[in-house]
Amino acid sequence: MRPYEVIKAKRDGQVLSADDIRAFIDGFTRGSVADYQMSALCMAVFFRGLNDVELGAWARAMLESGEVLDLSDTPGRKVDKHSTGGVGDKVSLSLAPLAAACGVPVPMISGRGLGHTGGTLDKLEAIPGFRVDLPVADYRRLVREVGACLIGQTSTLAPADKKLYALRDVTATVDCIPLIASSIMSKKMAEGIDALVLDVKVGSGAFMKTLPDARTLAKTMIGIGREMGKQVIALITEMDQPLGRTIGNALEVKEAVEMLRNQAPADYTEVTMALTAEMLVLGEVSKSPDEARRKLQQVIDNGSAEKKLCEIVKAQGGDPAAITDLSKLPKARQTIAVEATQNGFVTSIHSEAMGLAAMSLGAGREKTTDVIDPGVGFVLEKKVGDRVSIGEPLVTIHFNDEARVPDVKRRIVGAYGIGAAAPQQRALIIERLT
Amino acid sequence: MRPYEVIKAKRDGQVLSADDIRAFIDGFTRGSVADYQMSALCMAVFFRGLNDVELGAWARAMLESGEVLDLSDTPGRKVDKHSTGGVGDKVSLSLAPLAAACGVPVPMISGRGLGHTGGTLDKLEAIPGFRVDLPVADYRRLVREVGACLIGQTSTLAPADKKLYALRDVTATVDCIPLIASSIMSKKMAEGIDALVLDVKVGSGAFMKTLPDARTLAKTMIGIGREMGKQVIALITEMDQPLGRTIGNALEVKEAVEMLRNQAPADYTEVTMALTAEMLVLGEVSKSPDEARRKLQQVIDNGSAEKKLCEIVKAQGGDPAAITDLSKLPKARQTIAVEATQNGFVTSIHSEAMGLAAMSLGAGREKTTDVIDPGVGFVLEKKVGDRVSIGEPLVTIHFNDEARVPDVKRRIVGAYGIGAAAPQQRALIIERLT
Repeated sequence: MRPYEVIKAKRDGQVLSADDIRAFIDGFTRGSVADYQMSALCMAVFFRGLNDVELGAWARAMLESGEVLDLSDTPGRKVDKHSTGGVGDKVSLSLAPLAAACGVPVPMISGRGLGHTGGTLDKLEAIPGFRVDLPVADYRRLVREVGACLIGQTSTLAPADKKLYALRDVTATVDCIPLIASSIMSKKMAEGIDALVLDVKVGSGAFMKTLPDARTLAKTMIGIGREMGKQVIALITEMDQPLGRTIGNALEVKEAVEMLRNQAPADYTEVTMALTAEMLVLGEVSKSPDEARRKLQQVIDNGSAEKKLCEIVKAQGGDPAAITDLSKLPKARQTIAVEATQNGFVTSIHSEAMGLAAMSLGAGREKTTDVIDPGVGFVLEKKVGDRVSIGEPLVTIHFNDEARVPDVKRRIVGAYGIGAAAPQQRALIIERLT
Repeated sequence: MRPYEVIKAKRDGQVLSADDIRAFIDGFTRGSVADYQMSALCMAVFFRGLNDVELGAWARAMLESGEVLDLSDTPGRKVDKHSTGGVGDKVSLSLAPLAAACGVPVPMISGRGLGHTGGTLDKLEAIPGFRVDLPVADYRRLVREVGACLIGQTSTLAPADKKLYALRDVTATVDCIPLIASSIMSKKMAEGIDALVLDVKVGSGAFMKTLPDARTLAKTMIGIGREMGKQVIALITEMDQPLGRTIGNALEVKEAVEMLRNQAPADYTEVTMALTAEMLVLGEVSKSPDEARRKLQQVIDNGSAEKKLCEIVKAQGGDPAAITDLSKLPKARQTIAVEATQNGFVTSIHSEAMGLAAMSLGAGREKTTDVIDPGVGFVLEKKVGDRVSIGEPLVTIHFNDEARVPDVKRRIVGAYGIGAAAPQQRALIIERLT
């Protein structure tokens, strides 16, 4: 394999062989293929794409650049869920205990938040004592014994992806669907799963702004899964406003626990139920999504889902008392309401703007080195379609640093659209792709 | 200027500002823009192109990354010629003394050969004592006093181009017309010229294989010249067979001197006359190409062109006796004929194959570190359209290393097409573009 020839072939629209892709990515990981060659190839891929076979080879080479976890000592089909990321997306926090309570082992390796989107790891760490940096041996044991384990990316999993992502980030090749898809899939396949449910979010707060792009990304990831012999189902879900009523780490944990008590907002509940039902079907504990939903409702109603969450928390070093008694979660010292300045209906809530506002309050990170304040965030008192009157609270800000509040308030007012009539309700689950 | 934004803008088909192009190239030269960012930008340029204004800014930024020679102490309009490179292309060797003998100062900075094409510097160095590494002060003085000086690229001229070319060479972004054109023009503009004649070769032995590509390259370079306030004329010339009858450094010097004595093959003579005539018009010593041709014929007939070549050789440390007495040029120890194995007409001579055969004999370089044997090469006894009979010599090989001959012979036989009828003659000068 000559790197030059591989770049030229892709540049000229040819299909790369699996061997060439493997050698290129291996060389890149080891350093024998230079960064400037990989960036040129990524730009050629941006223009020429990768077909299903190439994508499979690409993701497999990234996957096999590191350790692939073997969970074969856990009986049953292991199923994970991946979301392309949204604002207020705390689905994993309730989905993992729900699926585990129904007998589907959930090996989940998640990321941290950056920019306007939060990260599952940051939310979990809002639970006092919760550790996401467990050794791989513990991860394997907990998937087997508890039925779920949620940890962070380790340096041994898909190191090629880590190196490539850093390069793409500075060479304008991040927003390229084949590279996004192979990056996600290589990391997920390293977890040791048998099947995967994808939550591809579309809308103003999502990475994919349009339905055709979301559909292409979903299909591309499903294709990679197929090439790698794994079953993948994707739901395209709406992200035109934040999911649920909370943004901010401890606030989102609270809302997730409330979901397990039938007390959460309908949108967040519905997205979680739909995704978890797919996991139950893929995990072969239910025959259909409808049957799965009934089972999920059971484990909520009989308390075993919340109990499973407590087990997970305890197994990962956290304090389960903070789940059973939500007042023990970290809290901001102060709250203040952002009030409506006009009468009408909420017509839109710009998710990205809300996410950035929460970030500037300390709930998220601008740079990877920023430290998160777990207690701060927003409770959305009004969501799209709600009627508002002047002076009514739109959002309650939970804050510790008063100096940041005026700017955050301005951002929130700017993110809320108020109009004379309620907008048409959009479906939450837009499409299901297999 | 954020490198990421510039790459993304070009990737998405936007027009870059002159300031951004300048800052990107300056950053690349200094090292603050990484190689992997430049290679990504070059690949984006491969797909998106650069418009005339962008090209002008790009070439200017590369030009101004280094020294721009000032030849204003030499009266008259300084004119150079650049060829995109061919096999047997010894035009510069006769063109420079011809133009200088007619009063057009010729500041010429040339390259070395690599692969199948020879380089003017290597040919000049076949003249005993000839130095191409003169200091810039000598170059300026000789253009003024002798009327021509032919030297090699210095490290102070267009260093951005040197660095960029090395990067393009390993990232499959060499064969990209905007990058080729700006590379050539940035180097040529650094010479201190007022105008430039381009010889854009097209055909099997040329970098541009098709007329549309050659035309695009010519127009692109003319456009850059216009953006930089320099007059540029291009001739698209045929390179479907080697030019003239010789390939190899000393053999080509000999043929060039013979041209100045009216004794060279018609094709080489015609291309040289056409290009030099354009220089005389651009140099404002002739009103039209026709008038220029009459003047050129005069300086050939009265011996002043050959005399000028002797002056140039002497001024650059060479032995002019090797020009007046061509037997003093380096010679190979042995010759052998490659004979025709069938009757008919020569229908084609694959220039690239002939160039590679000459390279393998020692007349050229495969790697930049290879040492050239000045005496070796080929004399083409038959050219396209000539009738041949079995046993007649097609080519005389001049060689020093007998071990290389069998392979070279095979290559030559493979490069010659012999058919039943003479092919239609193609025009040598295919188009003139201004």
